[in-house]
Amino acid sequence: MEQLLIAGQWRNPSNPVGSFHAVNPATGEVIGPAFPRSGDDDIELAVVAASQAADALAATEPERIAAFLDAYAAAIEAAKDELVATAHAETGLPVSPRLADVELPRTSGQLRQAAQAVRAYAWTHPVIDTKTGLRAHFAPLQKPVVVFGPNNFPFAYNAVAGSDFASAIATRNPVIAKAHPLHPATSRLLASLAFDAAIANGLPAATVQLLYDFDSALGLRLVGDRRIGAIGFTGSRAAGLALKSAADASGIPIYAEMSSVNPVFLLPGALRERGETLAQEFFGSCTMGSGQFCTNPGIVLVPANADGDAFLARAAERFDAAAPMVLLSTGVQQHLAAGVQALRDAGAQLVAGKASADGPGSRYTPSLLSVDGDAFLAHAQALQQEAFGPVSLLVRYRDIDQAIAIARAFDGNLTGSLHSAADGSDDAAYKRIAAALRPRVGRLIDDKWPTGVVVSPAMQHGGPYPSTSHAGFTSVGMPAAIHRFAQLQAYDNVRDDRLPVELRNANPAGVQRLVDGVWCDRAL
Amino acid sequence: MEQLLIAGQWRNPSNPVGSFHAVNPATGEVIGPAFPRSGDDDIELAVVAASQAADALAATEPERIAAFLDAYAAAIEAAKDELVATAHAETGLPVSPRLADVELPRTSGQLRQAAQAVRAYAWTHPVIDTKTGLRAHFAPLQKPVVVFGPNNFPFAYNAVAGSDFASAIATRNPVIAKAHPLHPATSRLLASLAFDAAIANGLPAATVQLLYDFDSALGLRLVGDRRIGAIGFTGSRAAGLALKSAADASGIPIYAEMSSVNPVFLLPGALRERGETLAQEFFGSCTMGSGQFCTNPGIVLVPANADGDAFLARAAERFDAAAPMVLLSTGVQQHLAAGVQALRDAGAQLVAGKASADGPGSRYTPSLLSVDGDAFLAHAQALQQEAFGPVSLLVRYRDIDQAIAIARAFDGNLTGSLHSAADGSDDAAYKRIAAALRPRVGRLIDDKWPTGVVVSPAMQHGGPYPSTSHAGFTSVGMPAAIHRFAQLQAYDNVRDDRLPVELRNANPAGVQRLVDGVWCDRAL
Repeated sequence: MEQLLIAGQWRNPSNPVGSFHAVNPATGEVIGPAFPRSGDDDIELAVVAASQAADALAATEPERIAAFLDAYAAAIEAAKDELVATAHAETGLPVSPRLADVELPRTSGQLRQAAQAVRAYAWTHPVIDTKTGLRAHFAPLQKPVVVFGPNNFPFAYNAVAGSDFASAIATRNPVIAKAHPLHPATSRLLASLAFDAAIANGLPAATVQLLYDFDSALGLRLVGDRRIGAIGFTGSRAAGLALKSAADASGIPIYAEMSSVNPVFLLPGALRERGETLAQEFFGSCTMGSGQFCTNPGIVLVPANADGDAFLARAAERFDAAAPMVLLSTGVQQHLAAGVQALRDAGAQLVAGKASADGPGSRYTPSLLSVDGDAFLAHAQALQQEAFGPVSLLVRYRDIDQAIAIARAFDGNLTGSLHSAADGSDDAAYKRIAAALRPRVGRLIDDKWPTGVVVSPAMQHGGPYPSTSHAGFTSVGMPAAIHRFAQLQAYDNVRDDRLPVELRNANPAGVQRLVDGVWCDRAL
Repeated sequence: MEQLLIAGQWRNPSNPVGSFHAVNPATGEVIGPAFPRSGDDDIELAVVAASQAADALAATEPERIAAFLDAYAAAIEAAKDELVATAHAETGLPVSPRLADVELPRTSGQLRQAAQAVRAYAWTHPVIDTKTGLRAHFAPLQKPVVVFGPNNFPFAYNAVAGSDFASAIATRNPVIAKAHPLHPATSRLLASLAFDAAIANGLPAATVQLLYDFDSALGLRLVGDRRIGAIGFTGSRAAGLALKSAADASGIPIYAEMSSVNPVFLLPGALRERGETLAQEFFGSCTMGSGQFCTNPGIVLVPANADGDAFLARAAERFDAAAPMVLLSTGVQQHLAAGVQALRDAGAQLVAGKASADGPGSRYTPSLLSVDGDAFLAHAQALQQEAFGPVSLLVRYRDIDQAIAIARAFDGNLTGSLHSAADGSDDAAYKRIAAALRPRVGRLIDDKWPTGVVVSPAMQHGGPYPSTSHAGFTSVGMPAAIHRFAQLQAYDNVRDDRLPVELRNANPAGVQRLVDGVWCDRAL
């Protein structure tokens, strides 16, 4: 059985409650060694070790943290071939461009952006009020952060390499990573690179710990443990809500990303101008990564007119011609089949693709469903449930008023997109629909499809509940994502030499600070 | 029965479930008219009206919001005499300096600081990434904010005038204010000023609504209503935790401030240098406002040596000589008596004052309890429960190691203070104790007592759970407090004329923005 990374050692599990193997979803074959499903002893060991490391890590020089993040990014790039091959075998995601050329560079780039934010003290947001003697900044929680990685990004959201990991480490908090059990060998390899880089840069040995899996009851107990500082989670709504409930009961902040249907509005003028291109782009966005993106266009609003019919016909051609696509697992395949059935039960019609599970391994035929606007509004809750995979629901809207009513019927989502005509003919409709959609989505997109999340300081990869647990935070983009794992601390009348370096008069690190209402890097 | 302010009208209650009167706590006399305890119909009316107003308010010009906040501040100052007299009668808090010279100016000042933050767009924190076409800022929730005011600040934390109110309005969200039933006439007067100022400045009529009281079951239903955008609460831990649980279950952010004992460490050198002064300041801080401050010094750490004995003796003289002090209500009096009894049951000894309820009205004798460090550590949970009123617990620590152990035994608190010698003789001890205390408190204070919360951009009036519900936010200080009622929104590839004004290339409002990592107000 594979070893766990706990308390600065690769060690055999103490009291595993079972084991599991990865499966190649393209073939259905079991691959790789057995990985332990942890019992309570190993979780307790990890919590104790991380708690003991928390103070020392919080007191670590930021430069050391930044050096670790850079070194880890470089190690990931150096191990690219092995990482990509392992992740490809475990997830069925394409080697190129997806894993090798998009997700891996994004992951190392994200770690480097976190390093930059650490060196600049950007996430600490120092505020100085010289008139009152008050100074404030964001500081480490000084407690372990538990990160639950999702199934669909073996690198970029991996519990031991993704944005939650980078953010928690940037705030100098130890991470207890709970890998996703669909890609354990990828996670082990990443943890090994992270651990070696942490030791090489002098970080406490329990800065990075890795567990592969544990039962949900143990997970609920862990996230409700008052020794934990915060939780990052990306995954299903059911799991996210259960974890949120347990964390909330103990007053522990949890940042959960929990599914989204990412409505896309095709306005009449846009379809008239570029219906063929939109159909082509839509197929690409819906089936990219076999549709297993949190920003997948799950619902597309199409006018009930001739241009809308033509768009549907063009899109349907592509969906009908597509071969079954490899999903991440048979579990994902079963959820998708159940989700599509639920949409059909609620009145959606199959209009392209076979909507069928297939083999070898875990595959599904890209498919399109459709429903008219009245039916959608009559069953809006049932029809906006996520069907995670290469499936979209087209909603045919009668007129702009109905499109607005539909926009208002959406729960919180990560993204909302509008495609409008270049000639201005959609501008009046855009204004009204965008106004209705805006408060319901984290990122509003013009004339692009939602898949693809750029790591940028101006990104909001988050959104109103229930797409995430708090609309004020983003899980992607430095330094904003880092804030989630920090606490706001003020110093009142505290002597200069006792202050954190970024709050001292001399500003030796040259940090950007808000001094008496003005951003500057000057000494006081 | 007094009228409620709902949907832009002062109106008779629809289905009150009873009524109540204010009581002058200095005399025990019932004063003023009957106020309704609202039933579900009035709450529903308020939620519907606020929900309908939310979109229009979010679309309002910021200058109009700022003008409202300024006008309301001026109206409060113009009505100062009536406000102060009313609040004095309802709360027993001194007219001067407390109500007239401290709390009222703080309240109007806070509204004006919110107006400044609105005019400068400071709380929107615009971020522009020119390379990716992404722009982000904080935006209104476009849903009602429910504010629960506490008993102890009839102006500065009033649900219809305090920081939560100012913050929610600054983000252009309507407020449903639930007044504290101990000062209904004060709240009615404030709501009347706010409503008139709102109408005069062209805000939607349901921007400000006022309910005086309702049963806790209705309160729990209200905060769990998905039409609500967020909740601000200041009050007891029991009420705060109940509301938090209901709000959490619906994914609604709640910002609850829920009690704090505000540990104060007197280091040996400081006591040697200025024990007499510290004893005098301590008495003032502990009994200010009859000790009814969220930042009251509830626990004071005193060395178990001769200087500590002298400090205790000097403080005891003052407590023994003090007359019974007027509390806010008989409920507060009863809670205080029960809290003191609980501390005594856990091993604390009464060392000064009679620890007795008194009359006329609702009074209590300022009192000091004491316990040694070992006993505190043995019963740390029981001995750090808040006794809200003019009472402190002295904990006698044997040595610096024990002081550190005690610091580590504290739950989350709003503040932590350290008094150290000017000659440097405490510096080594300070460093170790402050390091232990720092992650457990929101505001770390040198050489001052914790009472007194300055409204400053660098304030953190918040702290780790359970002192508040989230350590990343403050309830006082603009623009940080405003963030609580905002959501993070990104614009991706959105055409310039469709962007919010502070994200447009031309930057017509001259807003400070983070453009490609640099704060500036330049046009693009």
